[in-house]
Order: sequence, then C-alpha cells, then structure tokens
Amino acid sequence: MRITGTFLDEISHDIPHQNWGREEWKKDFMAMKAIGIDTVIMIRCGHKRWMTFPSETLIARGGFKPPVDLVDMFLDLADELDMKFYFGTYDSGSFWHNGEYDKEIEVNLPVVEEAWNRYGHHKSFAGWYLSLEISRRKAHVVDIYRRLSQSCKELSGNKPVLISPFITGIKQNDSGTLEEHEREWDNILDALNGTIDIMAFQDGHCGFDELAGYLEINSRLARKHGITCWSNCESFDRDMPIRFLPIKWEKMLLKLEAAKQAGVEKVITFEFSHFMSPNSSYHSAGHLYNRYREHFQI
Amino acid sequence: MRITGTFLDEISHDIPHQNWGREEWKKDFMAMKAIGIDTVIMIRCGHKRWMTFPSETLIARGGFKPPVDLVDMFLDLADELDMKFYFGTYDSGSFWHNGEYDKEIEVNLPVVEEAWNRYGHHKSFAGWYLSLEISRRKAHVVDIYRRLSQSCKELSGNKPVLISPFITGIKQNDSGTLEEHEREWDNILDALNGTIDIMAFQDGHCGFDELAGYLEINSRLARKHGITCWSNCESFDRDMPIRFLPIKWEKMLLKLEAAKQAGVEKVITFEFSHFMSPNSSYHSAGHLYNRYREHFQI
Amino acid sequence: MRITGTFLDEISHDIPHQNWGREEWKKDFMAMKAIGIDTVIMIRCGHKRWMTFPSETLIARGGFKPPVDLVDMFLDLADELDMKFYFGTYDSGSFWHNGEYDKEIEVNLPVVEEAWNRYGHHKSFAGWYLSLEISRRKAHVVDIYRRLSQSCKELSGNKPVLISPFITGIKQNDSGTLEEHEREWDNILDALNGTIDIMAFQDGHCGFDELAGYLEINSRLARKHGITCWSNCESFDRDMPIRFLPIKWEKMLLKLEAAKQAGVEKVITFEFSHFMSPNSSYHSAGHLYNRYREHFQI
Repeated sequence: MRITGTFLDEISHDIPHQNWGREEWKKDFMAMKAIGIDTVIMIRCGHKRWMTFPSETLIARGGFKPPVDLVDMFLDLADELDMKFYFGTYDSGSFWHNGEYDKEIEVNLPVVEEAWNRYGHHKSFAGWYLSLEISRRKAHVVDIYRRLSQSCKELSGNKPVLISPFITGIKQNDSGTLEEHEREWDNILDALNGTIDIMAFQDGHCGFDELAGYLEINSRLARKHGITCWSNCESFDRDMPIRFLPIKWEKMLLKLEAAKQAGVEKVITFEFSHFMSPNSSYHSAGHLYNRYREHFQI
Repeated sequence: MRITGTFLDEISHDIPHQNWGREEWKKDFMAMKAIGIDTVIMIRCGHKRWMTFPSETLIARGGFKPPVDLVDMFLDLADELDMKFYFGTYDSGSFWHNGEYDKEIEVNLPVVEEAWNRYGHHKSFAGWYLSLEISRRKAHVVDIYRRLSQSCKELSGNKPVLISPFITGIKQNDSGTLEEHEREWDNILDALNGTIDIMAFQDGHCGFDELAGYLEINSRLARKHGITCWSNCESFDRDMPIRFLPIKWEKMLLKLEAAKQAGVEKVITFEFSHFMSPNSSYHSAGHLYNRYREHFQI
Repeated sequence: MRITGTFLDEISHDIPHQNWGREEWKKDFMAMKAIGIDTVIMIRCGHKRWMTFPSETLIARGGFKPPVDLVDMFLDLADELDMKFYFGTYDSGSFWHNGEYDKEIEVNLPVVEEAWNRYGHHKSFAGWYLSLEISRRKAHVVDIYRRLSQSCKELSGNKPVLISPFITGIKQNDSGTLEEHEREWDNILDALNGTIDIMAFQDGHCGFDELAGYLEINSRLARKHGITCWSNCESFDRDMPIRFLPIKWEKMLLKLEAAKQAGVEKVITFEFSHFMSPNSSYHSAGHLYNRYREHFQI
C-alpha cells in the first residue's frame, strides 16, 4: 500500500519552517511525483495572524500580509505536474477552542470564498480540506464541519471535502477503547449526514498493534455512511523526545501494512517535505525516502 | 533594514555546539561578511566553569582550561575581515541569580582586565558587551551593569558598552504592557546614568503585532537618555516545540520591517552561525540565508 | 585516551532513527574503523515489541517481525572489518520497572539462547551486554544481572559479559555523593560475585569536575573485584534543551582525560553513529569526528 498523497504543512504551527523558495518547492514536488504522489493537501490556508495567500479578509482582521503567495505557487506546481490540490480552511487558533463555534465559521466563510474566486480556475484545485482536527472528544466541532463543508461545496460545484481526525489512542491523555471509537464515530458520521466526502484518520495516536483494529472500524464506518476512507500515515516519530523528527521506516511499513489489511482506498501522509523527502532539512527523511523506494521498487 | 551584526554564541548555554575548528569559523565569518555583517559580539567570555580563552583568573576559580583560545581566533578573523568585535563579560550562572550581586562583579573585574591586557591591542576590539540579560523585572542587575561598564570603559579608554535586554512580552510568563515597559525602562536608564552606550533589545518575547510598538518606545527612550538604539533580531523560532531551530523567513522579515519603522540605528542578530548561516548544522538556516539574500538582492 | 568501542543504538528508545540501510551501515562501520574503533556493542536486541532480529520467541509474545535482520548484518560487517561484537539482551520495558524481575529473566533466557544458536558461529561474536541500565538506586536488578549473565556464559563457553551502569551524579534527581557511590557499588559488585566481566560506567550524569573522582573509584572497585574497567564516554550533550544532539568536543576531551587519569582500560561511547559520525544526520557529529581526529592525529 503506497503513499499517494501528502499534506503541505503551510501554515505550520508546530513544525519548524524550512525556508524554501519556489525552486526548492518545485524540486520537492518532483520528488513527490517520483514516488507516485498525485495529491497535495494544504493543511490550512491560515493560522491566527499567518496566512498562505494575501487574503484581504484575513488582512482586514489583523493578519500579516505574506511575502509570497504560496497557494498560487502550490497550484501552479500541481497544475504543471498533474497533481490534485486540496485547499485547507482557516484555523483561528482560538474561537473553536473557546467554544465560539459560530465565530470560527464566520471568519472562515469569506476566506474560502475569496480563495475560490482567486484560485478556483486552476485545473488542480480538486477539493477542500477542513483543517480543524478533532477526535471523538471534540464532537461539537461537527457543526463547524457540516456548515463549512456545505459552503465549500456550494461555492465549488460540489468539490469533495476531506477531514483528517485523530484516534483517541493510547498516546492521547484521555484514550478510549476501539468500541468507544466505533460508537462515537458512528454518531459523528450520522450527524455529518453526508456533508463530508473523505475521511483520513491520523494513524499515530494509537499503539502499532491496535492500528489495524482502528483502521478496520474506520473502513466499516465509511462504507456504512457512504464516505471514502483514506488513511493519514504519519511520517514523523511520535515516540521520541525530540518532537518531531522522521519516523523509523519499520514503523511506517507496519502502518502501511495495517492500511492495506483494512482495505482503505488511499494513503496520504503528514508530511512528505519535512519527514520523508530527500530535500528535507532532516537527513533521516532522505534515508526514509530511500528505504521506501527500495521496498516498493520505485 | 539589514542585519549588520551578529552574536557569536560562545560559551553557549542552551544552543548545541557545532564543533567547528578555525577553518569552519573562517568560512562562516566570510559568509557573514558577504551579506554585510560588520560587527561580531561574543555573547560571554565564560559561563560557570567554561571559558572562551585560557583565563588565569577563571582557571584559578576552578574553570576548565579550554583546548582553543576562541577570543584570539575571533579577533584574528575580525582583524583580517575588517569587522568590529565586542567582548562579552563573564556570567557566573549563579551569583546574580542568588542575589549575590557583588560577587558577580568581583569575579568579573579581573577577567575583563585580563582580557583587555591580552587582546586590547587588536584593531577589531571595538567594545564590550555586558552578558547578563535582564528585563524590567530584574532591575537590580542595573547596579552590576553600571559598575562593570565603568570598569570596562576605564580599562579601554572608554570603548562603548552594549547591552541586550529582553522585552517582557506575551511569550514571557510574567508579561507586562507597553506602558509598563516604557515607565520601567525609563527608570532603569535613569539609574544607568549614561554608563552604557548601546542597547539592543531582543525582539522575540513579544507578539509580532506588538513589536513595532516596543521598538518605538525603545527608540524614544534611547534618544531621551542619549543612548544608541539597535535591535537584536532573533534568528531562531520561539514558537516551535523544538527549542530552537531557525526562524521562518517571513517572521524575520516582519521584525526587520518593524525595526525600520521604529528607526533603530542598527540590527544585530542572535545568531548567524546556527540559525542563518549556509554553514549551519541546521539546513533551514542556509535556506534562510538564501531567502534573506534574495530579498535584499545581496 | 582514545575511543575504541561504540554502542549500536538498535533498538533505540529515545534517539530518532536514521533509516540507514546496509550500504549506510557499512560506510559507518568503516568510519568507526578509521579512528580505531574495534568493538561494537548492540545496545539491546529488542525493546517492548521491537526487535533487531526475527526472534521466534519475541514474535510469539506479540513482537513485530522486523523487515531486516540487523544482528546478522552487524555481525557480517564486524566479521569483515575484524571488529568485536557484543550482543545486548532484551529489555521488556515493563517487567523490571514493575518489580517483576523473574519475568524479565524468563522472557530473556530463550531469546539469548535463540540468538546464540543463530549467530554464535560468527567470529566477531565476542560477548554479551546486559542491557538493563542501573545506578546504585536500582540494586535489585543485580539479581537479573547475575542470573542472565550466568546463562549467557554457559551458552557461549564463558564469553565475557559487559554492563554499563550510570552514576547517580548531580544531573540525576536523586544524586548521591562519591562516598555513597563507592560503598554501594562495592556491595553491588560483591553481590554480583564475579558473574560479570566488564563494567563501563556512563560518564554523563555527574559534573565534569567530579568525573575523575568517580572514575578513580570505579577503577579501584574493579581491581578489588577482579573486573575489567572501561568508561562509556557519552558523545551526546546532556546540558542542552534539545535531547539529544552531539556533545561539544571540549566536553568530550575533558571526559577522555579523566578516563586516562583514572587508568580505565578502554573507552567506549554511546554512540558513534548519531553523535560522532561523518555520516550522522546531525552535522555537528561530523565536525566532532574531525575535531577528534585532529586532536589524536588520526
């Protein structure tokens, strides 16, 4: 089971920036393409005062006008290399944490509209990514998902909407059981009522031995609710004191095998450019790339 | 507004060492010079038992005799490349934290005298840097500043003395307001009574949106008290879990623009060799160097 | 006093993986050899569910079958380069922490037997390393040491057994004095009663000024109890916020001089490949390698 999609971690909130320009990004998109990655997902178009494109809406709210339009650049590169691009929504970093759910939606709606008007013509603009990351414990975000997703779809002629929630596994403080996961996500997907198209659970918060179980539940729930099921195979190592450096190849392989076993339709990763790329500032990412290529004989 | 000075982080107390020899340091001084850096500031000549030169005074107090005389090497390189060198005073790492202010001065006076006697003849020996870092909350250090500064100036025929305090901004536990900053630093500069020549506040402890306000206050206070105002534009990222890796170029640019707006006279950085250099162990530092050069067309 | 041995940090539990394949490992063994390293010590053959070779015993207990047999590869390389290999025992990561000492032994005995049957024929298979790391405060592990050591020696025709305990120095929470260290380790070595052959204390938990004192005690105790005394010169820096990056050369040099002064018989390091190698993902490791070679004119 190969990885055919990756997040683009702009705006990052916890991974140090690599300070790449267009040349470095182009080289990295080509390294992605070389191993079969056909999909790039921009993790969020903005976070707090930071933004990936000069959004008038966000600048009017006190955001910092960026020196480069990353969305334009990513779409150009995706057009050129025949890849699909998903646009990540804005994350205020505050409203939804403080229970102000309506405000999180209010600030987002004009941003996604602005983005669609600016960039919707690109052939690679394939869909939307709802950037708020939830687990079963933050189910109140479901309402944001539903309303924001509907707006994105209306704007764009029903382009697909992706979410990437996390499993409340043993590496979370308030971890739950597989049964709780199934019951609660069944409820959440009921509440979402078909407003999202694809779900790609992050695969790093549970034990490696539990992952196949979680992925099988996810696949089953996806089928039941008519949703496409991907897996988000994290390429950073959650088990180390340095938070975060590239994952050990053996761990990634175990997770890819679990995804295959569970029959998920596609595997994406968070994320190629820092943790799996020969161009990464972290050299072990380049070695991971080589191990991956050797294994799949790419 | 370009960066024309950098700290040399020897002795470091929180940034891992790069293990450079003379050849690597020379290459790095040349990389500094290539972007217009004309000033290097050794952050401290010693810390606890560690020292940058074989100081008899510090060795007699139980310090470890170093394998290399870094001060000699830095001054040679600065002489050769026509750069200005500021000598950082000793930091006991204990006395001034424990309220033993007299001891901090007592241990320092013979060290700076020894340094002046050994190295004062270098044409690049341009001034002194008082290595204790304070904010408004540690104003009792002012007395150390005043007495140590006077001794340094007496020794050296009044060579200028630099400090680099930090702003008690929102990234500090006990953050204050801009008004408190102005009032308290007005008092501190009154107490310093002309004994220091240059102040270069660290620019990383406040919000990016607050920085221009702080820098304008600093400029105004400097004019009022007849002090030269620089800014210390930190080149590491304070917002990330790994403490610390190179800053995102966009953040550095915002801070340089705030410095320009506030009319500071010179911008220095902490520090080039780890966080902004093509020779750094951190590759994203080399990319920051490239983004910086592109922006200023150097 | 040169470093002539290194740990191989497989399975690591706290150092991020470099994702090397056979080619990278071979290159690294050659870099070791180039500076006189003649001994490699695999830190543990397994940790929790992870393992270095496809141990049937561990797989039957729920372990993950590894994609590569590292033990086989390490022994091949050691055979080829005429180096000595020490095999590290399994660490459950749980039993011995929970007071279930018998279980820690029970799970280990068939693993070491399996390893001996698979790999004992290699000419480089030189001895055993007991992977549980203790200080004077965990003296109850002595019983595991004794029983496990005896089994290893019986299996292998009395091949030597190595341990690498840590000093309860000032960088430990519950630090003790040199006198306590001497008294308690005298008791521990009495209890071990000749069942281990070599002890190589980790040299990083005490102050640099205290190290010579600790090493002299270790040498004296070793002579008294008829044990060979090595020192484990840690090549990572314990004093920095990033846990861990390569040590400053000056610190390593101080520790090597202390080892020389105390008359230890051999110095090994934890560990070459991340922290001291020109092939490391951390560039400052390569610079450490260069400083080391310059100093010893290798």
